[in-house]
Amino acid sequence: MTTQAQAEDKARVLIEALPYIRTYRGQTVVVKIGGAALEDPEHASIVADDLALMSLVGIRIVIVHGGGPQVSVAMKQAGFEARFVGGLRITEPEAMSIVRGVLVGTINPDLVARLSSSGLRAVGLSGIDDSILAATKTVGPQGEDIGWVGQIESVNGELLATLLDGGYTPVLASVGYDGEHPLNINADEVAGAVAASVNATKLVYLTNVEGLYKDFGDKGSLVSELKANELDRMLPSLSEGMQPKARSALVALHTGVGKVHILDGRIPHALLLEVFTDRGIGTQVLP
Amino acid sequence: MTTQAQAEDKARVLIEALPYIRTYRGQTVVVKIGGAALEDPEHASIVADDLALMSLVGIRIVIVHGGGPQVSVAMKQAGFEARFVGGLRITEPEAMSIVRGVLVGTINPDLVARLSSSGLRAVGLSGIDDSILAATKTVGPQGEDIGWVGQIESVNGELLATLLDGGYTPVLASVGYDGEHPLNINADEVAGAVAASVNATKLVYLTNVEGLYKDFGDKGSLVSELKANELDRMLPSLSEGMQPKARSALVALHTGVGKVHILDGRIPHALLLEVFTDRGIGTQVLP
Amino acid sequence: MTTQAQAEDKARVLIEALPYIRTYRGQTVVVKIGGAALEDPEHASIVADDLALMSLVGIRIVIVHGGGPQVSVAMKQAGFEARFVGGLRITEPEAMSIVRGVLVGTINPDLVARLSSSGLRAVGLSGIDDSILAATKTVGPQGEDIGWVGQIESVNGELLATLLDGGYTPVLASVGYDGEHPLNINADEVAGAVAASVNATKLVYLTNVEGLYKDFGDKGSLVSELKANELDRMLPSLSEGMQPKARSALVALHTGVGKVHILDGRIPHALLLEVFTDRGIGTQVLP
Amino acid sequence: MTTQAQAEDKARVLIEALPYIRTYRGQTVVVKIGGAALEDPEHASIVADDLALMSLVGIRIVIVHGGGPQVSVAMKQAGFEARFVGGLRITEPEAMSIVRGVLVGTINPDLVARLSSSGLRAVGLSGIDDSILAATKTVGPQGEDIGWVGQIESVNGELLATLLDGGYTPVLASVGYDGEHPLNINADEVAGAVAASVNATKLVYLTNVEGLYKDFGDKGSLVSELKANELDRMLPSLSEGMQPKARSALVALHTGVGKVHILDGRIPHALLLEVFTDRGIGTQVLP
Amino acid sequence: MTTQAQAEDKARVLIEALPYIRTYRGQTVVVKIGGAALEDPEHASIVADDLALMSLVGIRIVIVHGGGPQVSVAMKQAGFEARFVGGLRITEPEAMSIVRGVLVGTINPDLVARLSSSGLRAVGLSGIDDSILAATKTVGPQGEDIGWVGQIESVNGELLATLLDGGYTPVLASVGYDGEHPLNINADEVAGAVAASVNATKLVYLTNVEGLYKDFGDKGSLVSELKANELDRMLPSLSEGMQPKARSALVALHTGVGKVHILDGRIPHALLLEVFTDRGIGTQVLP
Amino acid sequence: MTTQAQAEDKARVLIEALPYIRTYRGQTVVVKIGGAALEDPEHASIVADDLALMSLVGIRIVIVHGGGPQVSVAMKQAGFEARFVGGLRITEPEAMSIVRGVLVGTINPDLVARLSSSGLRAVGLSGIDDSILAATKTVGPQGEDIGWVGQIESVNGELLATLLDGGYTPVLASVGYDGEHPLNINADEVAGAVAASVNATKLVYLTNVEGLYKDFGDKGSLVSELKANELDRMLPSLSEGMQPKARSALVALHTGVGKVHILDGRIPHALLLEVFTDRGIGTQVLP
Repeated sequence: MTTQAQAEDKARVLIEALPYIRTYRGQTVVVKIGGAALEDPEHASIVADDLALMSLVGIRIVIVHGGGPQVSVAMKQAGFEARFVGGLRITEPEAMSIVRGVLVGTINPDLVARLSSSGLRAVGLSGIDDSILAATKTVGPQGEDIGWVGQIESVNGELLATLLDGGYTPVLASVGYDGEHPLNINADEVAGAVAASVNATKLVYLTNVEGLYKDFGDKGSLVSELKANELDRMLPSLSEGMQPKARSALVALHTGVGKVHILDGRIPHALLLEVFTDRGIGTQVLP
Repeated sequence: MTTQAQAEDKARVLIEALPYIRTYRGQTVVVKIGGAALEDPEHASIVADDLALMSLVGIRIVIVHGGGPQVSVAMKQAGFEARFVGGLRITEPEAMSIVRGVLVGTINPDLVARLSSSGLRAVGLSGIDDSILAATKTVGPQGEDIGWVGQIESVNGELLATLLDGGYTPVLASVGYDGEHPLNINADEVAGAVAASVNATKLVYLTNVEGLYKDFGDKGSLVSELKANELDRMLPSLSEGMQPKARSALVALHTGVGKVHILDGRIPHALLLEVFTDRGIGTQVLP
Repeated sequence: MTTQAQAEDKARVLIEALPYIRTYRGQTVVVKIGGAALEDPEHASIVADDLALMSLVGIRIVIVHGGGPQVSVAMKQAGFEARFVGGLRITEPEAMSIVRGVLVGTINPDLVARLSSSGLRAVGLSGIDDSILAATKTVGPQGEDIGWVGQIESVNGELLATLLDGGYTPVLASVGYDGEHPLNINADEVAGAVAASVNATKLVYLTNVEGLYKDFGDKGSLVSELKANELDRMLPSLSEGMQPKARSALVALHTGVGKVHILDGRIPHALLLEVFTDRGIGTQVLP
Repeated sequence: MTTQAQAEDKARVLIEALPYIRTYRGQTVVVKIGGAALEDPEHASIVADDLALMSLVGIRIVIVHGGGPQVSVAMKQAGFEARFVGGLRITEPEAMSIVRGVLVGTINPDLVARLSSSGLRAVGLSGIDDSILAATKTVGPQGEDIGWVGQIESVNGELLATLLDGGYTPVLASVGYDGEHPLNINADEVAGAVAASVNATKLVYLTNVEGLYKDFGDKGSLVSELKANELDRMLPSLSEGMQPKARSALVALHTGVGKVHILDGRIPHALLLEVFTDRGIGTQVLP
Repeated sequence: MTTQAQAEDKARVLIEALPYIRTYRGQTVVVKIGGAALEDPEHASIVADDLALMSLVGIRIVIVHGGGPQVSVAMKQAGFEARFVGGLRITEPEAMSIVRGVLVGTINPDLVARLSSSGLRAVGLSGIDDSILAATKTVGPQGEDIGWVGQIESVNGELLATLLDGGYTPVLASVGYDGEHPLNINADEVAGAVAASVNATKLVYLTNVEGLYKDFGDKGSLVSELKANELDRMLPSLSEGMQPKARSALVALHTGVGKVHILDGRIPHALLLEVFTDRGIGTQVLP
Repeated sequence: MTTQAQAEDKARVLIEALPYIRTYRGQTVVVKIGGAALEDPEHASIVADDLALMSLVGIRIVIVHGGGPQVSVAMKQAGFEARFVGGLRITEPEAMSIVRGVLVGTINPDLVARLSSSGLRAVGLSGIDDSILAATKTVGPQGEDIGWVGQIESVNGELLATLLDGGYTPVLASVGYDGEHPLNINADEVAGAVAASVNATKLVYLTNVEGLYKDFGDKGSLVSELKANELDRMLPSLSEGMQPKARSALVALHTGVGKVHILDGRIPHALLLEVFTDRGIGTQVLP
């Protein structure tokens, strides 16, 4: 049983959330969850609770996920070797069925189930459903064939809107569709394009790094806030994993998304603290 | 700046609220605020914040208020003496204009203003507006004339519904209308009748006592939970101030209101703690 | 029992109203009722009937009222002296609570009750409700402090629209709100600003003068119709009481209000005759 | 220009209409107009004005018309002889095309045009449109063939509701449809069946008689009010023209129509006086 | 009973219709049916079936009809001689009542009945209903009086939209209204103006010619497709019957109608084949 | 290019479909597609076209699919042996991830893609999404543990209704959810339960047999129509694969589904012919 002092502390925390709830109510927030964040079940369950609370106070949430580590494991089991060119996974036709099986057949329903347990009305989707993610096959940096890898041509946001209006939380696996084949698309790129298409107020990347470093080797150089044009200048010096996030963030910011956050998903309730308290976490990028 | 440990505490409190938000979202809660609770501005502002948070997470709130102490002051200033019969204030015609001036012209707009500052879209009403509180003149326990004092005949809930559906929070002063004259009605009675008419899930009395005592003289006999039929039996032994609350609570519970709470409004954030945490405060009456 | 000849007369009058009803159906009309018009109960009841008829044939009505004479009486009773600068009542903080008590706590519910008796679904409001009348403290002509007197910054018409759409008639007391304090605002100014914000077809001032005189001293110089620019030129020569009406009328006409009428509220059914018959009364100002 | 005294008279008449408008607003009234009433253009134009006023104050009106005299003229011109059996016109197949040409091709559009001039949004219909009047061929009193004469099987009220909801006034010619052929149906019968199907508050027969007489030969025996069961008893003694009205009125009253009026359409504005004043005209039948 | 091979053929035809249905679903198509096409009952019934199928797959259909041949017969019977000036029928006042009787009282309800048998919810209208076809009296080529003949001033499409939204198919007779009199209007002109007013995707003329000929005398010169400007140039050389179609088609194409078709209504199911198969019939005019 | 004779044939087929379209428009049809039907791409594409046509003419379609053969292959590849008890696949926990990978990650998106190519707005779902298929773990006929195999407790049809109302076609993989784990459910059972929950007019099983045989060994004993109670009696004698279909069909028919069809999916366009022509195929079961 709570003591009187603890009770007052609780009340204070709830009241502190008041202005944030007022600000974000009815707004749309796109959250990109990296595959790493979903590997630890306890961790994933905390993220699910955070998202459920956001949804219950009236925030419209769209979740985008990839599944890099899990795909690598599955491909290794099937005898494929993980090969990357310019941050893009080379995806032979046979490999694509493994990629899709993992993203659409495993990670997506697992995440939907977890969100349901936290009380969200989650609906799993891939870019193939209602052709949400219209994509085209892309090539490697030197123009080489890299298999069924795609880049987004356009996002068809109607189904997302129908679901959000109905009180559902869409959970989108980063698989695109070129009208004939499924294509493997970088989930960071998907998140940015989706955020732009649903007029999101915020785009949040839940990562497994602390945020953006001015100097990648120096942990003390964490940037807590920067402008889009600064990020643009930093682009060449960013780590390979951070580059698609940064590029996608810039796309989103240029098309009206209000803010992009790169949060350390390893901090428990990072999402909640970022949205509902004055606790600054990770890096935020302003237009 | 919050430390990591504090941040985790904050997150824990917010997550603890999750199941309560889920339960009450879209439900209607009627809150009766006693005049005493509104005399201390700091206190009133805490109550306003609690109500705003409840509203922002999707609870439909109707506020009912009286203004006993303030009316007594104003009547004294105007040379009237406060006289009560059976808990009812004797209200001569000239006194009624003071009563209404205080309730409708002072307390109501003050409360509306305070709620606005906390972010609610509050709309002040009296029972005269759209004839919400249809009432008839009543008499004292011995049938004696007690002036413009009324009892509720019926509650016309349409305007309340229109406002709730539009996202507004109605704030209702306990003044009724008999088609010709305004009538002074006990605010506790109004709260119960309104709760019944809007199908409230909860009716909360914010009072200046700890709750209901089994033995009125013994502070240790506070009852934390009881059933309607038990309350019915206790009725004769209750204090004069508690009697209209109890009678009105029984009316509400018999017509489908889910629960009635008698909270100690002097505890900061009593409302919030009752609604969003496992902290039991005051007395709750079940059907 | 009506004779055949009388019956035909009745029918003729009803039919004469046909084109006017056709014109105004679904249109919004703002009616400003001066405090004087409300002092005589019989008179007030005629006005209420006129407004009820207008509402029943489908006109959307917003009523704005002040209460000059009544405020003066109440302030005198409380020992304050009525002092005016440039047509604005000097309102010390303590006086403001009297002003509000009279406007919001007495005149407004009295008018609402009267309109209810005539069959309108009237809802009393002040500018504090949902912050309808956002205002700022103003100063006297020489920059001197004149107390809690305000001027309108903006009108938040959402609540008015919600009520009109729901079939209600809002009755607005001329009290503004600066986010912290109630402010005394000239009711003529409120009427003009509200008419502009609700896209009114007509703004009607029910006054206790015959209309506008070309030469203030000469009763024979009553102007029955003039243009906004003519009114603008006449402004300096107008009586002190007419000046805020004229200024506010110009604001309304410049922001799209179709016509402004200055009617002699002492003529029984002036409103009805103006709206539903070919009888020209008072002064009308065209854009 | 109206004098002051006349103006006050006008206002009084308008105000007298207030309670009637309040009562009938949003209610549905079916008005059956006999062919005779439409022969005199001036008269027809008065009826149109009455209906327009009723519509403008929010009454939902459905008009049903026949056209006996006009049909007789047209048939005579075409060399047919008007023959009746039990009040039903014998209608040979070739005659039916004349009947329909007159009702649907002449009287209906003429009436629609007249109502438009009075400001109604009138829409002409026959029972063939959307198969509103599903009918079957009937026979004479002795079972003899009487041609394309029908009786109503059911009224399909959907199209009427769509039009009323859209603000239109349906004007229905008394032609039914058996799925293959148009059928000539007594317009009084149509009016009663339609009133029942649209849940009309009132069914009004605009006739060219004063009302119902207790003793058909005695002009002094006009009945101003009677009950359905009294009418039932009087049925055999009624004139042949009155019988279908009476039978149809009984059907309507038994299925929930509130009142049936038999008005003397030759009195100018009979409709208006009946609906908006205390002037009792003709005969009213209560359930 | 169908054989397996026939079954496959059937399936193939249905599947062939798929892309056409996809294209036209929810689109509005105006079909003008000439009087000739309605003379043969069997033929008319095929047209009705075609229209019913179009409606059932979600096409919004407006039908416009004239009735030249039938009017000529009726006028001859009544002793009038059919006289034309510049393609316009000279219509003396007395003749107008015959014209209207035939179009509104005979052809229109006959067509409505036939469409009902095919399952459409057809509603007969003339331009008088809700003043759909506002028209003015026109004169002959030499300025001579040609009687009650009109040209369209504007089309009031609200009633058409209400009916289409309600799932009904309006069937419009080519009679206009100048606020006082019905006017005889060329049905081809009506079709073009209506198509423009309802933003039709297609305007189809069901005629009794094969289409447009380059050289009117040479059957081999049928044009299967041409552009609006080509049609414009051909205008002087067209037959008298084709001229109003062509002029009206140009009006429609200039105001946004997508395509105009001139089909040979004598080919069974010409409408269906044009809309749902790759079979090109008659002439199509592109903007 | 089509000849005239072919054109007429085409038109005839389209018109033949008219009464069927009229009947099924706006109705809901559940189609269960067996895994076998999806193995042949050409075949699957014909089924997709049939479904697209049904959807375009206004039928609301819900698709349910299993994937028996594909699951068997995948399990064999992963070293599992396909074992069945009483028609239920024994599904060890590790096997369940293969089952789900195949159904949700491969067959479902492949089918969605194919339906998109045919013009449907298809949305892939599993019973985990919004907890559509609430299920519990079941046991074998002897009460033995058979792993993650479930039976349906209830169908949550809200998401299906939201999608159907929005014009989408839900495609549901037969995976249930017990609040913690995904469960393998017989797709035939899912189809019946879903049909009952969405008030389907028809439930169609697309199978790879001709229909129901009276005598399983005798191809000549195909039953073309039978009643639910006859099916009930035949139940014990049915093949193991037909038993769940039959049991599920009975559940559906008892809860209001209008008809159940067992069609031979190997016949091209079996679905289309059944729905839009008089061609009887396979077996139909009536309530």
